[in-house]
Parts: sequence; C-alpha cells; structure tokens
Amino acid sequence: MNEKRKIVLVGTGSVGMSMAYSFMTTGGLDELVLIDVNKEKAIGEAMDLQHGLPYARHNMVIKAGEYSDCKGAQIVVITAGVTQRPDETRLDLTARDTVILKDVTENVMKSGFDGIIVVASNPVDGMAYVAQKVSGLPSHRVIGTGTLLDTARLRFMMSEYLTVSTSNIHAYIMGEHGDTSFVPWNNAYIGCKPLLELLDEKKRDLSDLHDIYTQVQQAGYEIVKRKHSTYYGIGLSLNRLVQAILNDDNIILTVSAYQNGEYGHEGLYIGVPAVINREGVREIIKIDLNEVDQAKFDKSCETLKEINQNAIDPLLK
Amino acid sequence: MNEKRKIVLVGTGSVGMSMAYSFMTTGGLDELVLIDVNKEKAIGEAMDLQHGLPYARHNMVIKAGEYSDCKGAQIVVITAGVTQRPDETRLDLTARDTVILKDVTENVMKSGFDGIIVVASNPVDGMAYVAQKVSGLPSHRVIGTGTLLDTARLRFMMSEYLTVSTSNIHAYIMGEHGDTSFVPWNNAYIGCKPLLELLDEKKRDLSDLHDIYTQVQQAGYEIVKRKHSTYYGIGLSLNRLVQAILNDDNIILTVSAYQNGEYGHEGLYIGVPAVINREGVREIIKIDLNEVDQAKFDKSCETLKEINQNAIDPLLK
Amino acid sequence: MNEKRKIVLVGTGSVGMSMAYSFMTTGGLDELVLIDVNKEKAIGEAMDLQHGLPYARHNMVIKAGEYSDCKGAQIVVITAGVTQRPDETRLDLTARDTVILKDVTENVMKSGFDGIIVVASNPVDGMAYVAQKVSGLPSHRVIGTGTLLDTARLRFMMSEYLTVSTSNIHAYIMGEHGDTSFVPWNNAYIGCKPLLELLDEKKRDLSDLHDIYTQVQQAGYEIVKRKHSTYYGIGLSLNRLVQAILNDDNIILTVSAYQNGEYGHEGLYIGVPAVINREGVREIIKIDLNEVDQAKFDKSCETLKEINQNAIDPLLK
Amino acid sequence: MNEKRKIVLVGTGSVGMSMAYSFMTTGGLDELVLIDVNKEKAIGEAMDLQHGLPYARHNMVIKAGEYSDCKGAQIVVITAGVTQRPDETRLDLTARDTVILKDVTENVMKSGFDGIIVVASNPVDGMAYVAQKVSGLPSHRVIGTGTLLDTARLRFMMSEYLTVSTSNIHAYIMGEHGDTSFVPWNNAYIGCKPLLELLDEKKRDLSDLHDIYTQVQQAGYEIVKRKHSTYYGIGLSLNRLVQAILNDDNIILTVSAYQNGEYGHEGLYIGVPAVINREGVREIIKIDLNEVDQAKFDKSCETLKEINQNAIDPLLK
Repeated sequence: MNEKRKIVLVGTGSVGMSMAYSFMTTGGLDELVLIDVNKEKAIGEAMDLQHGLPYARHNMVIKAGEYSDCKGAQIVVITAGVTQRPDETRLDLTARDTVILKDVTENVMKSGFDGIIVVASNPVDGMAYVAQKVSGLPSHRVIGTGTLLDTARLRFMMSEYLTVSTSNIHAYIMGEHGDTSFVPWNNAYIGCKPLLELLDEKKRDLSDLHDIYTQVQQAGYEIVKRKHSTYYGIGLSLNRLVQAILNDDNIILTVSAYQNGEYGHEGLYIGVPAVINREGVREIIKIDLNEVDQAKFDKSCETLKEINQNAIDPLLK
Repeated sequence: MNEKRKIVLVGTGSVGMSMAYSFMTTGGLDELVLIDVNKEKAIGEAMDLQHGLPYARHNMVIKAGEYSDCKGAQIVVITAGVTQRPDETRLDLTARDTVILKDVTENVMKSGFDGIIVVASNPVDGMAYVAQKVSGLPSHRVIGTGTLLDTARLRFMMSEYLTVSTSNIHAYIMGEHGDTSFVPWNNAYIGCKPLLELLDEKKRDLSDLHDIYTQVQQAGYEIVKRKHSTYYGIGLSLNRLVQAILNDDNIILTVSAYQNGEYGHEGLYIGVPAVINREGVREIIKIDLNEVDQAKFDKSCETLKEINQNAIDPLLK
Repeated sequence: MNEKRKIVLVGTGSVGMSMAYSFMTTGGLDELVLIDVNKEKAIGEAMDLQHGLPYARHNMVIKAGEYSDCKGAQIVVITAGVTQRPDETRLDLTARDTVILKDVTENVMKSGFDGIIVVASNPVDGMAYVAQKVSGLPSHRVIGTGTLLDTARLRFMMSEYLTVSTSNIHAYIMGEHGDTSFVPWNNAYIGCKPLLELLDEKKRDLSDLHDIYTQVQQAGYEIVKRKHSTYYGIGLSLNRLVQAILNDDNIILTVSAYQNGEYGHEGLYIGVPAVINREGVREIIKIDLNEVDQAKFDKSCETLKEINQNAIDPLLK
Repeated sequence: MNEKRKIVLVGTGSVGMSMAYSFMTTGGLDELVLIDVNKEKAIGEAMDLQHGLPYARHNMVIKAGEYSDCKGAQIVVITAGVTQRPDETRLDLTARDTVILKDVTENVMKSGFDGIIVVASNPVDGMAYVAQKVSGLPSHRVIGTGTLLDTARLRFMMSEYLTVSTSNIHAYIMGEHGDTSFVPWNNAYIGCKPLLELLDEKKRDLSDLHDIYTQVQQAGYEIVKRKHSTYYGIGLSLNRLVQAILNDDNIILTVSAYQNGEYGHEGLYIGVPAVINREGVREIIKIDLNEVDQAKFDKSCETLKEINQNAIDPLLK
C-alpha cells in the first residue's frame, strides 16, 4: 500500500490553483504538491488550501514542494507560463514560453519522473509539443488540454440553446486551441439524434450554430475583458482530465494529442477526440470529417506546424 | 424555506430499498418516507437506514410513514407488486398487479398529492398506464422506469466490449420492458462516431451486437437464477431518474412514457428516449428509426396494447 | 415544486467566487446569482463558472443578476467590502465598510427578501451587526462567518501536530475574528479525550499550543504576504455554512452570532459555537469557560462594542 | 501506476453486498472482487452491481473472483458466516463460525495477501481474533467492525434526542459487540460540551440515556423482527472503515482491536476507540474510564476471553 495518488502542479497561477482547489471537493487525490518559480507563492497557496481541509469532502496531503517531488507522482500538471507583453508578437510570446516549458520539463525529468505530463500552458498545442520533445516520454504520455475547455463552452452554450443537459450534447471543438479551431457540426448529436436533424425538426436556423461557435471563440476574450483572466472553467477541465487518467476512465475527451496520421498529419500536437485512461492517450478517435471540416483541420495543422518550426524547434536544439 | 426535497417510496422490497439506500451516499433528498403494506417492515427498513446516517455523506430525514405523507412530496416512487405464482399466466399476474397499483395510486391521490409518480412495479409499462389512468395526473407526470435498466445494461456491456466509458456509449433499448424490446443500432454512437462505422473500422463482427442484445435480454434471468432477484441495478436507475426530476436536469433517459403519436402510437406507455426535468417527461425524443426498427417498435406497442385492453382496462372501470 | 435552492452572492471578489466555484463540485444548490457593483465583473465571473458546468458534478443555474433576484432566495451571502488604504485607521476602514454594508443590505431588503443573510465582509463581527440592524431581520437570521475559518485553521494545525483527522479535533476559536480571539484549551477534545490529558500522556509541551495559536493568528498575514490575499479557506468555510443552513444540519459551527447574554454580553455579534440549521442560528452553545478564558471573551466583547459604538452606530442613524 | 485501490469481499450476503453497493456511489475504489462459497451467487451479485455502473458516480471494476485475487488487494473484507440454528448455543454457533473463518483466512493468506483484513462476521470480536491468529498478520492489520455500528446507532439516537448533527455527537459504545457493551457517558461530549452538563442545562433526565442505551442494544433485534436481518447500517459502517484505511484518514473509530494492555487486558479483540489509517489500527485511544465503566469493560473482556478459550482456541490448534 505504498503508492498514493499523487500529482504535482507546476505553476500556481489562477489556472493551476483553480484545479488544485477543485480537488478538495471532488476528491480523487491522496497528495498534491505545488511548485512555483516563486517558492513563497507556492507556500502561501498551500496554506490557503490546507485551511479549508476541515470543511472539505476528502482527506488529502497538500504541500509546497520541489521538482524532486515529481519522482513518485503519477501526473505532473504544467500551467507555468508568461503573460503577453504589449506589442509582443505571437511568435515572440511562444518563444518565451518555450524557454520556460523546456526548463520546467527538464527539471521534472531530472527527478526520475516516469508518469504522465498534462500541459495547460499556452499556446497549449505548442507547449505540449515542447514537453514531449524535451521529456522524451512516449507521445501518448504527454497531453495538452487542447480544446477541452472550448468543447465545454460549446456544450454549455448548446445546452442553453436547446435546453438539454450538457451530458447529452455530443459535439467537439477540434483543431488548434485558438483562432483556427472548428466544430464538425455534421458529427454532432443530441443523445442519439443528429444535431442537424433536430434543428430541422425544431425549425431552428443554422445561423444559430455559427453564432454559438462565434461565442465560443470569443468566450475567453469576453471573460478577460471583464475579469482580466479566465481560470474556473479551465480549472474544472483540468480536474476532469486528471481524474480520467487516475480513474482509468477510458473516456473520450478533446485534448491536444500527438498526431500519427489519424487525420492525415504527423509530428504535431492538436485538439482531437481521444480515449483517455491510465496510459494517457490510449487512442485518437477518428471521426469522419466532411471535406469542409477536413480542410479546416488541415489549415489548423499548418498553422501549428509553422509555429512549431519557426518559434519552437530552433529553441529545442 | 418550507419546501423540502421529499419523496415517498411505496413498497419496501429490495428494489425500492436499494434506491432508498443509495440516496444516503448520493445525497439529493431532504426527506424520504417509506410506506409498505407491511407497516412493521417499513419501520424496520427505516431503522436500518437511519443507523447508517452517521457514516453517510448527507443529512436527510428517513422515516416510515403513511399515505398522508404524500401530500407535500415532490415524487412518489411505486415499487409495490406481487410475485408470480407457479403456473400463473402473464395476464393473470398483470391483473393482480393492476389491483395493487390501483389501490396504491388511489391512496396516494387521496392525500392531495400533486407531484410526479415514478412507477417501477412490473410489468412496468402496464403499471405506469394504471397509475396515470387512476391518478388522473397529466400524463407527463407519470413515468415508468421502462427500459432505463435495460439501457444501462446495454451501455455497460458495450463499454466492456469496446473498452470505452459508459458515458460515451450513446445507445438505447426501446420498446416494452420485456421480450419485444430492441436496440436501434443505426442510431447508436460512440462519442460522435456512429457505432456501425466504429465496428467496421475495428473489424468487429455485427453478430457481436446480437450477442450483446441477447445478454441484455437474458440479464435479469441470469441474475435471478443466481440470487433470486435483481435490485442494485434498478436501484441506481431509480436514483438517477429521481435526481433528474428533482435537479431539473433536462437529461435524456429511456423511460416508459405516455405516447401521443411521436412514434406513431397513442394511448399507451412504452420505453422511449425522453427529456426528464422538474415537470416529468418534458418531451419525447423522436429518433429516425429505420423500417426494421420501426416494425419492432410497432410490434412492441401491439403487445402492450393487448395487455392494457385485456388485463388492465377491465379492472379500471 | 417551485422552490429552488437559490442563493445570491453580493460581491464577486476572490472570497465570494471561491465559495461560488466550490458549489460546482460539492453540489447542493439549484441556482446561484452573482451581484457586483461592477456589473461586468459579475457577468464575466458567471461565464467563467458556466463553462466548467459540463465537467462539474452537479447541474445548477449560474447567472449574473440584480438585487431583485434576492426575493426568492433562501440565503444572501455578502462578501462586498473595501481594501484598507495605506495609513488608514481601523476605525476609518470600518466606517467605509459600514457604508457599503448598509447600502447592500438596504438593496437586498428592498427586493422583499425574507431569508438568511450570511456576512463574510470584514471586519466581520461589525459587518454582521450592520446587516442585522439595517435589515431588521430577526437576529438569528443574520450570521457572520466569525471565527469559522480561524477554527478551521486551528483544527488543521492540531491535526498535523497530533496526526489525527480534523474530524476528531473538537476545539474552537472564540471571540472577535481578529486580534482578541482565543482558544479555550480546557474545553478542547480529541475524540472523547480531553486535549490536555492527551498532551500529558504524549509528554507534549503546553507551549506547543501557544505556538499553534500564534500560527493561527498569523495565518492570514502569512498567506497575504505570499499571495496578496486569502480566499480558498474562507471559500470552503462559506460553502460549509451555507450547506448547514440549506440542509438543516443542526451542526455546531463557530460563527459570529448575536449575543443575548449567553456568555454575559448583549447586543453585539461575536464568534461563538452555535447550532446552525434552516432557521439560521438555532441556539448558541454555552460551554463552561474558565476564568481566564471568560476574561478573554469579555475583553474581546469590549473591543467589538467600542467599534460598534464609535465607528458603526453613528452611521446607522 | 500499477497499484489500484483494490479490495476483496469474502461473503456476498446482504451485509457484504450493502457495503459493495455503497462504493458505487461513494467512490473510493478502483476494483472490487466478490468471493462466495456459492460461486454463482458471487457472479450474480457482480452482474447486478455492474448494471448500475452507467448511473453510478464513479468508475470501478467489479467482478466475481477467486482467493488468488487477494494477492494484490489492499484490504480483504470478510463477512462470511453461518446462521444460528434453533436451539443452538452461542458457543456451538461460535465454533461453527470459527471453522469458516479459519478456512477463509487460510485461503486468503495462501494467495500471498499482505494487506489488512477487516472482519464483519459475527461474533465479530471472536472472529477478528480467529483471523489474526490464523493469518499471522501483525495484530494492527486485522480489524473487526466491533462496536462501529453500535456507536453509529448511539450517535443517531442521541442526534434525534438532542436535535444536534451526528457529527457533533462524540460518544462511544465500547466493549463486546453484544450484551456486555456499554457507553462511558462521563466521556461523552456534544461539540466541546460534556454531555452530562448539557443534559443538566436542558433539564433532561439521566434516565433518558439509559433508554437510549437500551434502544441501541435492542436495535438489531428490533430490525430483525421486522425485516429478518440488518445490513444497511453495517454496510455503510464497513464503507467508512475501508475508506478510513485507504484514505489514510487517521480517524478515530470504535472497532474491535487487539488489546495490548491499553485498558488493562491483553490477547483479545474488543471494541475500543482507535486511530485508523493505512497501517490499520495505528493506536488505541485510551480514554479515562471511571470505575463503573472500567468494571463494565473488564466484564466484557472476561466474557470474550471465555469464548475465545472455550469455543475458539481448541479449533485453532
């Protein structure tokens, strides 16, 4: 009975801490270690969480720690990253984040870590790519949050639009976690009924779907405009992904996964539906995209490959 | 702050009690009242549950009660019924159950009850029909468990077969809770991928599906053979249905719902996918059955109508 | 089935939002309304929470709202307040907060609200006093968080010190939520064993207890030093208090409650153990303080009365 | 990530199955294996549970198994036993149960099992003694349910009597799980207030406590009279004990623990408060019994020692 359900969080900003805090009420962990470049910050965050334990649902060990704590952990969640500077180009920002991810990943691996890395740092598809390259872990054991939150937003908005539980909204946001993502509407279902059939039956307008997609795309921006950053939604998304791994759920989630040609592309990370279990990404689910959607996916891949080649690869040599 | 989440269980056999017990760990209720024709039995069951409260997750009032307790309840769950006698025909058994359901429903309504009736007594499609006719409640406020458990069995077995979480198995058992039920395989999906496509891709044999259906059909029999009766699966199914109502979930569940021509039939209760919320059955989801499946549904309806006309209606006059 | 479990949060800072977010994973609410003087902030926070719903454990309605939403609510939680200015005296700060609480409470009451007010705004004992005076609600229906978090911190630290679950640490921080609070160590128990007996048996030093008390007192300061503010611990404390009310738990919590002479003082709010249920504070638990502890309590009361008289009362006329 | 939270249940009667079923809604297990002398029964029970999984809260593997499955398990829970024959003496019954426990324990140990054994089979103090002797496991790794359920009954009844949450009722039933058990009332607290003080303050009669004790003592009998056997209360008690071990809770529970002189007796199992964690019984909590209560404990020990010597020991040679 030595092995505990232990995860390490690297980066105690609002995103990582929202995940951490949620585990106090969902349970599922035995031990949570917080690491931050600002060590005092990690200590303060650990204290704040600890003081809630008497009113939490589940017992767990919470502490600020060191990279050496990664050794026995099943999962390391990385949320570390920098904030965009005014007038900074996207490529420059990516370069700065790459340097951080590289450093974090090297430190994680030095500990003897041999588990699964979950990356939430942005740009997430690029950063998952960095973590895999630098760690040398099998690609199925490095996972980016990808379009996990985008898909949650989509499901929430469709749930409101159709007044049907989110658990019956079967639809994905695929592609880059960014401007080139898309929804394959032809592959969307409400329960066992194709979405487009349902809309037809309800005499709803297809343009509503475009409005919903636009809202999903703008959601992050709309929140940031009002509260500077967004973290609760992604916090729960991370909780779900970590639990899917620890509980061996074999559940389909849209994550940023390494491509081996499933959708015609190789060598990059991008958001696709995938079966998640204790091994990480067990399998990418290949849905039958129509031509238009495949073209969108291709474009999204090209965008990401360009970033990988121009902003990331030179820094990994 | 007067209204509590209160449900009344009529019938404290293993099925009803398995539902009752599960609420101690899922929470969701403020008060649970147990009624049984054997009043001492209800008292004993209440005591047994109460003694677990200190180790339960949620505070709730549990007590043995009277039909007058139905007055303020949101939901009455009826599991009362008789056991088949050796050599008793199905029609004779239905007749005996009808007499019981009629009596129970009359007693429930005399209290001034004005909520939702959930019927789990078998034959469930017929008994839901009885409860609606006798209660005079709007038909969307009387719900039978229908193929709720059958669908759970299907999802569990497909989950094992495909090694994919049950939450990604989107498939229904429809029709009578009995021999004439069926699975519309063409309307089944794994995540957002049609099941038949997935099987093709995995080079699995379609005959596997028939085996799974047969196992679902035989499941009750196989369990009864080994432990005399089946109650845990249906207990959790009831818990789910009750929570869908109380939480206003707008979730799609396969229940026995009153037909208003959605699938071409009227005036009977039968298992179909339906959106469940605080109003009961908000809406029956009409999926596009192929000819073969529609024929199966028609046949299932005919079977049930015959029972209603021959074994039930004469007793309701 | 009209009445939902609805609460309104006034003030969407980190404290209030940490409570709000925690309800997505503990469940227990049907509807949560967010109000903030910065209306756009409330909208942004609602969006951020909503997007987590597909991965949450429980269905609930989350929205930004208006004071008119308080009408049907069971509980209004007030966390609104200002930040201390450099060189601002405590009395001046209290005065500024009083103006805000008065305004908030008047707006809440104008809606026709007739439930329970929970106050977390600091200085909490004074602000609970304001909310009661201004609302005119029966004093048992206005509750301050008082020493709820202090007690959680105490229990966590003693749990670490003794390696015993927090659920077996029976000890209170009483008095002002501030410098004059104290622990009645003679009235502390580990399971059914007096704490002082246990320490004696374990040959632990009584000075350890003083260290623990000092750490509890310094905890807020230590966290603020490292992360600017503290909100997770108080967020879960608020969740616990709200659930105790909604679930009619009759549980003993140390809250800021109106004094009717139970401990020899009247007319003020201060932290004491009290039984919490659907009525609010059902009863203050009178433990038998020794002379030293009673003197500490007296002094704490005097401190608070002075604040009430000098900084608050003049503003309530 | 190889080690799963795996427990094996030996004996699929109502007691064991009520525990098993409760894990579907509390979560906390990765794998549950069911063993029964009637292998078909275990298969049927596994099927019944499995079919509830799609509506359960947590993913877990449930299966009927063999003793060889004990090898990797953290805990084996033994509920196997026989039913008392009419006119059978208690010693004869104990002898028959001893033979079964011996056989079960030997089979468990043959698998290479090296975890913790939890015994719920009756007479539980004797059967825990058998399991420890036969297994040769360190005594802190064999635990009987002891007065765990009796204490739950006490807390429930006192909670009703005082209208205070069971989580604030700090009182134990100690001694044999049977006629000679007792409540040390002087060591009972409501929150941080001695029970006897509270009764005095509320002008309640001490004879009420004797009534409550009598009701606790009669509870099993009263339930059996009405429903033939009792299993829900003990099912949740077992769930709590197993979770305390797996979660390393360091929580105080009244269990049947091996005595090393803590209360003046050695070499037997009897119900006492003990700290439970991943090691099993970490420590027996020694509360300061008054003379009357110590005499009751002594008598209870004598009763059990006699049974051990006369009915059990001869069969273990």
